[in-house]
Amino acid sequence: MELNGVEIEDTFAEAFPIKVARVVITAVTERWAEEAAREATGFATSVIGCPAEAGIDMMLSRADTPDGRPGVAIMICHFKKDGMKAQLIERLGECVLTAPTTAMFNGLEAEEKLPVKLHFFGDGFEYEKEVGGRKVWAIPMMEGEFICEEEYGVKTGVAGGNLFILAKNQMSALAAAENAVSAIRCVEGTITPFPGGIVASGSKPGSHKYKFMHASTNERYCPTLRDKVENTEIPEGVNSVYEIVINGVSEEAVKEAMRVGIEAAVKVPDVVKITAGNFGGKLGKYQLRLKDVLGL
Amino acid sequence: MELNGVEIEDTFAEAFPIKVARVVITAVTERWAEEAAREATGFATSVIGCPAEAGIDMMLSRADTPDGRPGVAIMICHFKKDGMKAQLIERLGECVLTAPTTAMFNGLEAEEKLPVKLHFFGDGFEYEKEVGGRKVWAIPMMEGEFICEEEYGVKTGVAGGNLFILAKNQMSALAAAENAVSAIRCVEGTITPFPGGIVASGSKPGSHKYKFMHASTNERYCPTLRDKVENTEIPEGVNSVYEIVINGVSEEAVKEAMRVGIEAAVKVPDVVKITAGNFGGKLGKYQLRLKDVLGL
Amino acid sequence: MELNGVEIEDTFAEAFPIKVARVVITAVTERWAEEAAREATGFATSVIGCPAEAGIDMMLSRADTPDGRPGVAIMICHFKKDGMKAQLIERLGECVLTAPTTAMFNGLEAEEKLPVKLHFFGDGFEYEKEVGGRKVWAIPMMEGEFICEEEYGVKTGVAGGNLFILAKNQMSALAAAENAVSAIRCVEGTITPFPGGIVASGSKPGSHKYKFMHASTNERYCPTLRDKVENTEIPEGVNSVYEIVINGVSEEAVKEAMRVGIEAAVKVPDVVKITAGNFGGKLGKYQLRLKDVLGL
Amino acid sequence: MELNGVEIEDTFAEAFPIKVARVVITAVTERWAEEAAREATGFATSVIGCPAEAGIDMMLSRADTPDGRPGVAIMICHFKKDGMKAQLIERLGECVLTAPTTAMFNGLEAEEKLPVKLHFFGDGFEYEKEVGGRKVWAIPMMEGEFICEEEYGVKTGVAGGNLFILAKNQMSALAAAENAVSAIRCVEGTITPFPGGIVASGSKPGSHKYKFMHASTNERYCPTLRDKVENTEIPEGVNSVYEIVINGVSEEAVKEAMRVGIEAAVKVPDVVKITAGNFGGKLGKYQLRLKDVLGL
Repeated sequence: MELNGVEIEDTFAEAFPIKVARVVITAVTERWAEEAAREATGFATSVIGCPAEAGIDMMLSRADTPDGRPGVAIMICHFKKDGMKAQLIERLGECVLTAPTTAMFNGLEAEEKLPVKLHFFGDGFEYEKEVGGRKVWAIPMMEGEFICEEEYGVKTGVAGGNLFILAKNQMSALAAAENAVSAIRCVEGTITPFPGGIVASGSKPGSHKYKFMHASTNERYCPTLRDKVENTEIPEGVNSVYEIVINGVSEEAVKEAMRVGIEAAVKVPDVVKITAGNFGGKLGKYQLRLKDVLGL
Repeated sequence: MELNGVEIEDTFAEAFPIKVARVVITAVTERWAEEAAREATGFATSVIGCPAEAGIDMMLSRADTPDGRPGVAIMICHFKKDGMKAQLIERLGECVLTAPTTAMFNGLEAEEKLPVKLHFFGDGFEYEKEVGGRKVWAIPMMEGEFICEEEYGVKTGVAGGNLFILAKNQMSALAAAENAVSAIRCVEGTITPFPGGIVASGSKPGSHKYKFMHASTNERYCPTLRDKVENTEIPEGVNSVYEIVINGVSEEAVKEAMRVGIEAAVKVPDVVKITAGNFGGKLGKYQLRLKDVLGL
Repeated sequence: MELNGVEIEDTFAEAFPIKVARVVITAVTERWAEEAAREATGFATSVIGCPAEAGIDMMLSRADTPDGRPGVAIMICHFKKDGMKAQLIERLGECVLTAPTTAMFNGLEAEEKLPVKLHFFGDGFEYEKEVGGRKVWAIPMMEGEFICEEEYGVKTGVAGGNLFILAKNQMSALAAAENAVSAIRCVEGTITPFPGGIVASGSKPGSHKYKFMHASTNERYCPTLRDKVENTEIPEGVNSVYEIVINGVSEEAVKEAMRVGIEAAVKVPDVVKITAGNFGGKLGKYQLRLKDVLGL
Repeated sequence: MELNGVEIEDTFAEAFPIKVARVVITAVTERWAEEAAREATGFATSVIGCPAEAGIDMMLSRADTPDGRPGVAIMICHFKKDGMKAQLIERLGECVLTAPTTAMFNGLEAEEKLPVKLHFFGDGFEYEKEVGGRKVWAIPMMEGEFICEEEYGVKTGVAGGNLFILAKNQMSALAAAENAVSAIRCVEGTITPFPGGIVASGSKPGSHKYKFMHASTNERYCPTLRDKVENTEIPEGVNSVYEIVINGVSEEAVKEAMRVGIEAAVKVPDVVKITAGNFGGKLGKYQLRLKDVLGL
C-alpha cells in the first residue's frame, strides 16, 4: 500500500483498554491555561515508569469553555481506578489549583464520576456557585478565587494506538513526527503522551540480556543495528525511526488520530515507510489496522 | 524599606535543606531540549502532593554543553536519597531517554553521586564512548543513538526560598510574577517549581477546619477575605497576591534569585508591596531576610 | 449598555473601504509557515507610515490548504491598486519565496486578480505543474523547489474597524487586549495589523500644536492627561486604554471580529468600559455600532 | 578542511559596507518587547525588494537595559543616510511607539547620530525626563506614557556576510540552518535578516534569460538542477542548501557570527559541506575567508 508515495505496511497497532479522564482548564489567557496543562500532564509518558499517562488533548476556543475564557483540555490515563483517583487529586490539586488564573471543569461525559475534593483547601472559606450552568466551588486564594467542579467523568478508553515513521534520515523522521503530533492535536479525545508527542526509543517487552528489565530497546527497529541483528525491520536507506503513541477516549478517536497523523507525516520529504507496533495480537484487545484506518 | 517606590517588608523567607540534582539535557535544537526538560520536570511543584520538586534551571549556550549542542539544565529536588534516586531513574528514563534527539549529562559537581543506569535499556547493544571529555553510554534506539552519563551529582541545597508580590489588581500581580520568574531563570542553580514558576495559592501548614489537610489556603493573605478574617495581611487597595517559590543549589543562589526576582517585580506598575513567607523561624534552617537579599 | 458587568458605550467604529488580498502560506511545519507570515506582514501597522497594512488572518489546518501541509492565511491591505500590486510582489517575493519550505497560494476568491510573477526568479528553469487542483509554478531553488500560484484575488474590504478597552490599570487593559486579539485570530477574513494586534497609541487626525503632523496623540483618551485637558473621555478610576484596529474582507467579518474581541476583553478583571473610535461619521463609509455588533 | 567531519570549502563570503543603526526596545515582559521588535524588523530581508534590512540582534537581560526592564536589541540597515533616516522614523514610529508597554533607547555608540523626533506625536503634552541616566521624552498616550530617546547612533557596518549549508536532505539542512541562526542570535551586533534567519532561495545577480531581473535563482547551487546545468556546485548526495546572510556592526562581529553559525550547523547529522557565497572578489569590500573565520 502507498500514501503520497510512502509505503504503508499492512499491519496493525495493538492497543489496550485504559481508564481515561478529561479535564478542561481555563485561564485569563491561552498562555496560562497551557502552562497549567503542561505542568499537570508532565512526567506522564508511560505507566511503565511514570505515575500516569497524560497529555494535552486540544486547545479550546472561548465558545467551548464553561466560563467563556481560553481553555485547554487535558487527558489523564491510568489502568486502575484507585490510581486514577490519586492522580486526579494530585495532578489537579498541585498543578492546576496552584497555577495563576486557572479554573477547572469536567471535560468528559461519562456514567462513572470520580470526586476531586479540592475545596477542602479553602479551609471553610470556600462556597458554591454556578458558572456556565455548572455547580462549582469558589475557593479564596492569594491570587483571588479558584473555581472548580468537584466531579470528573472517567471512562474506559484505549491506550497504545501507535504509528512508526521510517525515514532516510533523522531530521526528516523528526519533522514528520512533529507534523503527525500537531495534526493529532486537533483530534478531540486523543493525546500523544511522550515528550513533544514523540517516542525516540520504541521498545520491546522485557530484555534478552537483562532479565530484570520490563522493557528494552527494540533492536529490530534500530537503524544502527541493521547489520548486527537478525530479522531487522529496517529497510535499506532508512536511518531513523520515530514512534507516535496515542491514547484516546475511544477506538474511533484513536483511529482518527492515527489517520491524520499518518497523512501529515507522509507530506514530509524523505519519509520512506509507515508501519505500526504490535505484539502479534497476543496482548491487546484492539487491533487498529493501518489499512482500515486510512481506508486503503 | 522601599525599592522603586514599592514597600519591602522587613521580614524573611524561611527555607529548608533538600537534596538537589542538576542534569544537562542537550538536543539537536533548543526546542527539543526544552520539550524534554518540560516533560521531565512536570508534575513537580511541591513534595506535598508531587513525587518531587523540579524545574528548568536555565537554557545553556552551545559553549556550555559537553556536546556543543543547545541545552537546558534542569534540577530535581527530593528530601530523601532513596526518593531522589527513584525520581532520577524514572524522570530521566521516561522523559529524556524517550525524547527526540536528546543527550544527557551530569550538571552538578558534588561529592555524592547517584547512578542512573539507563544503559540496560540497550539490551547489550549499548557501548561506552567519550563525548566532551566525559565517559558516556551510547544506546542504540529507533531514532539512532542516545548518549548519557551514568552518574549524577547530588548535594544538599535549599528549598522554599520565596517572595510574595502584592498588587492593586490581579493582572499587575501576574505580570510582576511573570517578570520575577523570567529574571530568576537566568540565575544558575535555581528553579521556580510551580506552574510557569508562580504560586497562585500560597498556603499555611494544616487547616483550622479540616484536620486531615496538611496544608490549606493562607486566609490572612486572601484579598477576598480581607474583611472576613482577623489579622489580615492584605493592605487596603491590594486585590491580588502571587508567591514565587525558589529552590536552589545553595543559600547564596536562592538569595540571588530572590534579589533579581524582586527587582524585576517592582518594575511592573501597580505592584504595592513585596514580602516573604515564614513560619516564625520555628521550622526552617534558613532565614533569608529581604533586607540582606536586597542590600537595603 | 453592559456586557459581563462592563459598560458598553452606545457609539460606533468608523471604517473605510480598502483593497484586500489574502494569501495562503504553507510550510513543512506550522512554525515555518508562521515565520514567513510574520516576516511578510511586518512593518505594516498603518498606511500612515508603513507601505501597507498587513497581518496574520488565521492558522489553517492541513485539511484547508491546497497541498495538505500546515498553513497560515495572511492579509495585505492597501488603498490603491498599484500600491497593492507592488506590495504583493515585494512582500511575497522577498519574505515568502525566500523562506524555508514555504509554498504560496491565493486565499481569496474575487473577480479582480493581480499577477505576482515570481516565476521569473527561476531564470527559465521554472515549470508549471498542478497542486491540489491549482495550476502553480515550481521554481528550482537552493533548498529544493518553491511552489506558488501566480494570480491573487483582490477585493474591496473594510479598514479601521476598532474597539477601545478602558481598564483600571495598564496590565488589565493589556491582558484584555491580548485576549481580544487572540479571539479575533479565529475570525476568518480579519486581521489586527498593529504590534501583537494592539494599539498603545490611539491617535487623532492632525495635531493642535504641530501643523506638519498627520496624526497625534488622542489626548482626550490619555489617562495621564485626565486632569489637564478639557472634555476628557477617561472615567474616574481608569488608568489605561488600548485600541484594537481591525481590517477585514467585508463589513460582516469586521463586525464579527469586533464582537468576539469585545466578548473576550470583558472577561478580564478590572476592565471598566468598552467604546470605539470615530470621526463623528464625517469621514468613513461604514459605521459599525457596538449595539448592533453585540446584539444588545 | 573539515570541522566535526563536515567539509569546509576554502573560500570566502564577500561583503559590503552598509549603514547600521541599533535600537534597544524594552517592555513590561519579554514577550511584548519581542512583539514590537518583530513588527519593526519585518518586511526587511534584502534591500533588493524591501525598504531596509533589519532583524533582532539579541535579547537583553534587565541588567543591560536603561530602564531595567526586559529588552530586545534590533538592527536596521540601509545603504543610504536618507533612507536610514526615513526607515528609523517609520519603523520606530509605527511599530514601536504603537506597541504595548514599550520604551525605546539608542543601542549603538557612534559619532554620527540621527534624530527620530517621535515626541511631536505628543502634540505638546510631551515632556523631558531622565531614565537610566539618559535624557528621554515622555509622551502621553492612551496606554499611559511612551518613553524614548531622540538620537540614534549610526555607523558603517558590514552587509552580506554569509554561509551555505549543504546537506543530504532538506530537513537536515533546515535543522542545521535553524541551529546556526539560534547560535548567531547570541553574537552582539549581528542580525540574520531573512525569514527565521534563513535564505531558502540563494540568488545570483541578474538573470540569463530575463534581462529585467536584478537577481535570479543560483542554478549552480540548485540540487534539482544538478544534472541539468553545467558547472553545478552540488556534490553527489546533496539534496538541499540553505544560506544564512549576516549583517553586523563590524567585520569582526560578522566573522564571529559566521564562526558560531558554522560550528552550530556542523553538529546536525547529514550536513555534508559548508561553503560561502561571493562574486569572485569583484564587488565587495570585505572578503571573509572561512579558513580565517574558523581558525583552520
